[in-house]
Amino acid sequence: MTTEVPLRLRPTQEPAGSVLHVRDDLLRRVELRLESFLAAERARNAEIDERAVVAIDALGDLVASGGKRIRPAFCVAGYLAGGGDPDEPGIVAAGAGLEMLHVSALVHDDVLDDSDRRRGNPTVHTVFSELHAAHGWQGETRRFGEGVAILVGDLALVYSAELVSQASPALLAEWHRLRSEVIVGQYLDIAAAAEFSVDPRLSRLIAVIKSGRYTIHRPLVMGANAAGRPDLAAAFAEYGEALGEAFQLRDDLLDAFGDSTETGKPTGLDFSRHKMTLLLGWAMQQDERIRSLITEPGHTPDEVRARLLDTAVPENVEQHIAHLVERGCEALAHAPIDDTWRGELTDMALKVAYRTK
Amino acid sequence: MTTEVPLRLRPTQEPAGSVLHVRDDLLRRVELRLESFLAAERARNAEIDERAVVAIDALGDLVASGGKRIRPAFCVAGYLAGGGDPDEPGIVAAGAGLEMLHVSALVHDDVLDDSDRRRGNPTVHTVFSELHAAHGWQGETRRFGEGVAILVGDLALVYSAELVSQASPALLAEWHRLRSEVIVGQYLDIAAAAEFSVDPRLSRLIAVIKSGRYTIHRPLVMGANAAGRPDLAAAFAEYGEALGEAFQLRDDLLDAFGDSTETGKPTGLDFSRHKMTLLLGWAMQQDERIRSLITEPGHTPDEVRARLLDTAVPENVEQHIAHLVERGCEALAHAPIDDTWRGELTDMALKVAYRTK
Repeated sequence: MTTEVPLRLRPTQEPAGSVLHVRDDLLRRVELRLESFLAAERARNAEIDERAVVAIDALGDLVASGGKRIRPAFCVAGYLAGGGDPDEPGIVAAGAGLEMLHVSALVHDDVLDDSDRRRGNPTVHTVFSELHAAHGWQGETRRFGEGVAILVGDLALVYSAELVSQASPALLAEWHRLRSEVIVGQYLDIAAAAEFSVDPRLSRLIAVIKSGRYTIHRPLVMGANAAGRPDLAAAFAEYGEALGEAFQLRDDLLDAFGDSTETGKPTGLDFSRHKMTLLLGWAMQQDERIRSLITEPGHTPDEVRARLLDTAVPENVEQHIAHLVERGCEALAHAPIDDTWRGELTDMALKVAYRTK
Repeated sequence: MTTEVPLRLRPTQEPAGSVLHVRDDLLRRVELRLESFLAAERARNAEIDERAVVAIDALGDLVASGGKRIRPAFCVAGYLAGGGDPDEPGIVAAGAGLEMLHVSALVHDDVLDDSDRRRGNPTVHTVFSELHAAHGWQGETRRFGEGVAILVGDLALVYSAELVSQASPALLAEWHRLRSEVIVGQYLDIAAAAEFSVDPRLSRLIAVIKSGRYTIHRPLVMGANAAGRPDLAAAFAEYGEALGEAFQLRDDLLDAFGDSTETGKPTGLDFSRHKMTLLLGWAMQQDERIRSLITEPGHTPDEVRARLLDTAVPENVEQHIAHLVERGCEALAHAPIDDTWRGELTDMALKVAYRTK
């Protein structure tokens, strides 16, 4: 386990006593909570059988391997912006639960997408398929690797609930909504890819659910609810929806044009998996040639990428991202929160929209 | 959705006012809670997109297709045996959560085992693979079917937590233990099968975790804890461990010799998946020929089955099951519970040990 404190959304040292120092301290406690929880589970299971810690160690490696910790950061921001008491343990529990939930989603998504790298390392199903092959074990290699990944993701999913269970009922109500909604969103995503849907309404719905609500809006509202401030929900929903679209467009741009050594995962996957991303939906509406490259069989991801670069699409998407950031921040203009938090949420919006991994 | 009330462990009508009538009423409320929860989720999601209810309907079909409802029955029995108030809503929530958790486990297990039938119907991954093939959708048929099953199981897993969240902290502590433990047990199971482990200690450990604790011991303790009776935990643990072994041996016998039209799932799967079940571990210790049929490659499930029937193994296993039932019931002889419940738990022990599906 790492002892690194990855305040990835704001790595600077804030003056002691400032609200951002308090925020950084809460995010450090989220890291410590994740580590101590997994260490305790590991110790308890190590007594049973050496194999009983394998799934826990797979989770520990993923937690320690980095990640942007975006969801805990928004949850803590919503809590402090709403005037929540930083000494209440529930908010740390919620931040840790959100990150553990995300680990579960990553492990299962990597099976759904058959993706072989994550955070710079081989994905869980890849590791266990290779282990199976190397030992010449019984049964099918692929089924074993993917089977272990199903169980590792399940374990993270139940751990996330255990971590969050200390939180307040108002926070939990939003948490339950977030969890089932993102799974339904995932189903929409793979169904749309399978059906090869070119319906921009569906692409946008998936982005709203999977990025806006899961990553930004609902974590903020969980925090605000825990602080006893349900009145902030409307402004946070508007901010989250706009920023979620920006987040997803950046994700699509990174997948299309990003550097896989920096993102830690393969690029071009969306193209090769026939995902009708927001970016492609946008591009198809602007360029007939892209529409045919996407909808007609036999074209490679490189052809799509090359054509995209010949068009104004990347530039137009950048302009749209800038517009979304502006719209998201305007949603907070009259929200009853302190100006420090208005500034900080603007800063977080920029980091989300202009991240490089 | 069905309106059938499947009190599968005790289908008789009990006199009004009797404790068993109260128990039956609570189990009916568990069914209604499952139905109303899924109906509400369906209604909410139907507004989003027609595809947003697909995973929920897959769960609804599984819940409606039957199942023995063993875990809710033990949870409610532990609660009432401990003197719990039947009007408290927490126990109904816990029973519904346990059944939804089990639905999640079934959907994911069927992928792990590549099993094509469950409760007499095609399994979730089979249904969606066939749908993919029939429509000629994009991507790999197997990945789509198994991907949908991963998400359907995930949805049941988060719904189970949402259902249980109303229960008391003492019940929740046991619930969290049960959930992570059964996933670790599942990992041990697939790892032992892959490694082709012939270690009887490991086979027994897996049976204790997956059958004894998950199905009997911890559901009983959840109920007892909710009734404020942690003093019953030791007796319930002993009862559950003995009965869990009996339950698993019956499971193995049904897999080996059962009628798949009655069990609703394929038989002989354990043999063909190289599962070192309790039954096979037992048989290998008693018969050299079986040991070589199991450990040497190239033998069919039918050869193993035929040899088993030529030995005293099935009879010995039946005797051992009878001994386990006796031991389990003796564990309750001095437990501080009412004689009605001592009798009822004996009855449940017999039903678990001598079930035919």
